[in-house]
Amino acid sequence: MTQRLRHLTSLAPLARPTIERLLDRAESMREACAHGTRKLDLLAGRTILNLFFEPSTRTRTSFELAARRLGADVINFDIGFSSTAKGEELFDTLHTLEAMHLDAIIVRHKQSGTPEELVRHAMSGVSVVNAGDGNHAHPTQGLLDALTIRQHLPDLSKLSVVICGDVKHSRVARSDVHALSTLGVRDLRLCGPASLLPPAEELPQCRLFSDFDQAIEGANVVIMLRLQKERMQTIDFPDEAAYFHAYGLDKRRLALAAPRALVMHPGPINRGIEIASEIADGVQSRILEQVSNGVFVRMAVLAEVLGR
Amino acid sequence: MTQRLRHLTSLAPLARPTIERLLDRAESMREACAHGTRKLDLLAGRTILNLFFEPSTRTRTSFELAARRLGADVINFDIGFSSTAKGEELFDTLHTLEAMHLDAIIVRHKQSGTPEELVRHAMSGVSVVNAGDGNHAHPTQGLLDALTIRQHLPDLSKLSVVICGDVKHSRVARSDVHALSTLGVRDLRLCGPASLLPPAEELPQCRLFSDFDQAIEGANVVIMLRLQKERMQTIDFPDEAAYFHAYGLDKRRLALAAPRALVMHPGPINRGIEIASEIADGVQSRILEQVSNGVFVRMAVLAEVLGR
Amino acid sequence: MTQRLRHLTSLAPLARPTIERLLDRAESMREACAHGTRKLDLLAGRTILNLFFEPSTRTRTSFELAARRLGADVINFDIGFSSTAKGEELFDTLHTLEAMHLDAIIVRHKQSGTPEELVRHAMSGVSVVNAGDGNHAHPTQGLLDALTIRQHLPDLSKLSVVICGDVKHSRVARSDVHALSTLGVRDLRLCGPASLLPPAEELPQCRLFSDFDQAIEGANVVIMLRLQKERMQTIDFPDEAAYFHAYGLDKRRLALAAPRALVMHPGPINRGIEIASEIADGVQSRILEQVSNGVFVRMAVLAEVLGR
Repeated sequence: MTQRLRHLTSLAPLARPTIERLLDRAESMREACAHGTRKLDLLAGRTILNLFFEPSTRTRTSFELAARRLGADVINFDIGFSSTAKGEELFDTLHTLEAMHLDAIIVRHKQSGTPEELVRHAMSGVSVVNAGDGNHAHPTQGLLDALTIRQHLPDLSKLSVVICGDVKHSRVARSDVHALSTLGVRDLRLCGPASLLPPAEELPQCRLFSDFDQAIEGANVVIMLRLQKERMQTIDFPDEAAYFHAYGLDKRRLALAAPRALVMHPGPINRGIEIASEIADGVQSRILEQVSNGVFVRMAVLAEVLGR
Repeated sequence: MTQRLRHLTSLAPLARPTIERLLDRAESMREACAHGTRKLDLLAGRTILNLFFEPSTRTRTSFELAARRLGADVINFDIGFSSTAKGEELFDTLHTLEAMHLDAIIVRHKQSGTPEELVRHAMSGVSVVNAGDGNHAHPTQGLLDALTIRQHLPDLSKLSVVICGDVKHSRVARSDVHALSTLGVRDLRLCGPASLLPPAEELPQCRLFSDFDQAIEGANVVIMLRLQKERMQTIDFPDEAAYFHAYGLDKRRLALAAPRALVMHPGPINRGIEIASEIADGVQSRILEQVSNGVFVRMAVLAEVLGR
Repeated sequence: MTQRLRHLTSLAPLARPTIERLLDRAESMREACAHGTRKLDLLAGRTILNLFFEPSTRTRTSFELAARRLGADVINFDIGFSSTAKGEELFDTLHTLEAMHLDAIIVRHKQSGTPEELVRHAMSGVSVVNAGDGNHAHPTQGLLDALTIRQHLPDLSKLSVVICGDVKHSRVARSDVHALSTLGVRDLRLCGPASLLPPAEELPQCRLFSDFDQAIEGANVVIMLRLQKERMQTIDFPDEAAYFHAYGLDKRRLALAAPRALVMHPGPINRGIEIASEIADGVQSRILEQVSNGVFVRMAVLAEVLGR
């Protein structure tokens, strides 16, 4: 058995059995819930604090629900989102929170590497869980995507997975790649305009594509990324329709993928920009299952890092 | 026995026994509290989410207290109030929240009809409770006003009730009219400047007045509405004093009502604009009883829609 | 035995046995926590509301943690911080909250005296706890500072304590003076630029200094205050470095104090303005112990005012 995690900042360093243990635990949380269990008391008496330097109501709510379903108390530490909060100021905040005897801090920050910095500077036994840092990692999203795929297509070694959109700036893409490659996916394809792809050497386990028709060919899983509208101007597209034409997922394009390919998106979706409404709402869409699995994955992660 | 409600979006479609059941239940919550019961565990393990697109600390707090006193968890989903959140974007938010397995959504939105749209688009068993939508309805306010009146004047069929102020834009007025007419009030009067009255055919159970002295004559209940100060300019009043002179409730005017008439207001009050301080704080004022009843009515509503 | 407090708005009127009882109780909360007790249920079923008219995430979080560790529910009443909320408007808010049957209101307001005004206008049994009002008082800070000192130097009658910085505008300084003088500290020194010192007659139990080297001489406790950066311009200092040179705590200056003198600060600290980093993080710093004691002191205060 692998050792229990004390923190979760990235999936990159995790071995396959650790990721599988987390997914198995999330699955058992899901089953308990399906059988009518509303709350567990695994974390009764524990206090978990949401420290979000970037707003994200969805992710914060998912963590809050996960924590409460395990019986923990949740504190929302409403930092001004204008606050840069870095360096000593950030660590003073960390140490102040530690002095209040919190059990875990869920952190989101626009600066890559902030969660690891918190781990390095922590003076007590507080656990740090990354809820998204810059372009770096969004590990619970990687886990929930892996769980969603595994529920439908358990033999991951046989899958072709394409991730399409602004891969370069996407922490979701990076955490997905780490989760899926560690779990045995061998055919991982990243697709987007050349200016939105990472350098080939950054993710050597992936093949890069700029032609979506080519990239989606035969894929069993199609993960679409959210396009930040402000990014539009930095690339060569005159408007949203042109982007959708080149990199959007519509019916014609989905037909190039494997039959019954899973359609996924971390949300919130931009209808008609990266995905057609009929696909987002269609029978192959797993988008809402991802949301649902997100709560179970976060329960599993919190139970792991705070477990005795 | 009438069927249990799954949602509460408006009082208009409710039959008298349903409204009476809710009021009776609120009354029994009040009695339990008066006898020292601090919390019930009727909704233990349930999660209720506040989805407020318009700010309203008072109403949100009242719902939050009600939910917690029934043992439920409460999540405040802090949507940016600048968000228009309509159409597909709103329904994507709904479906995301449903995928997280919430039990109820309390919604406030400036667009009339939003709660009903959520009910129509809901895919799971989530309950929707309207905390105020546009000019349309504020059903828990209607119920708490009815409860407050019933506590003092149980035979509603004998009452004259006047509602005064910006009736046209008031969801409170509409929900009050629906609650009170269904419970048997036959003499319902709406009073305000002509430009702030609804068309006569909209609420045929009411008589319209533009002269407050005439409207208040012999009334057993006087419900004053809050005047949005920005509305002042759209009507023919030079200033607040002129409005108060025509439509404010002061001592002289209250003397025209029935002896011991109840004075009510949904709050927060504008002293000296729609109501004189000495009346708001006087012996006939039921304003704070309304607030108190609000928590019990919301407990009753949540217990109803989430009951087994 | 002294009488139980119903409210806590200031330490000035409290007798020594009352303050000692609160500190003893905080100490026993700390010991219970050190022995693994995560939650007490002293306040189960009670509801405590945070009414903050000035933002303070740290203090609000400390109160929220304290309340939850005693088993109480906590509601954050998110008043717009732009709201002036005074006079009738403030009392209407108070009465509305009272009508909702809250057990305690934690209030922070920029206007000195607001908590006492709430106590005077309260109509029910609600308890009011001051979380900082203007320049007037921050009683839980005074208590946590006294507790921190007592843990290291139990015989307070023998101590020299210096408080340095913007004393004039500091509610922390005033509450510290009241706590420490009542507990027997006889040598209390206030130090700062003349324009940032209160009039000598306001705190007759203290000596005033404008020369920090002189003031710190032989002190057993050095309490540094946060300098509001906007205050810089109203005093005669060209920049932060000049202020630090005159009134900052660095290694050289600390060497003038008694050996092993305690270094304290209410936080958040401005490194390099009022305190050098090496001192803030050094072995004599008690700053994080203050934070930790803050939660226990607030537990003690809530247990006191809401106890049966």
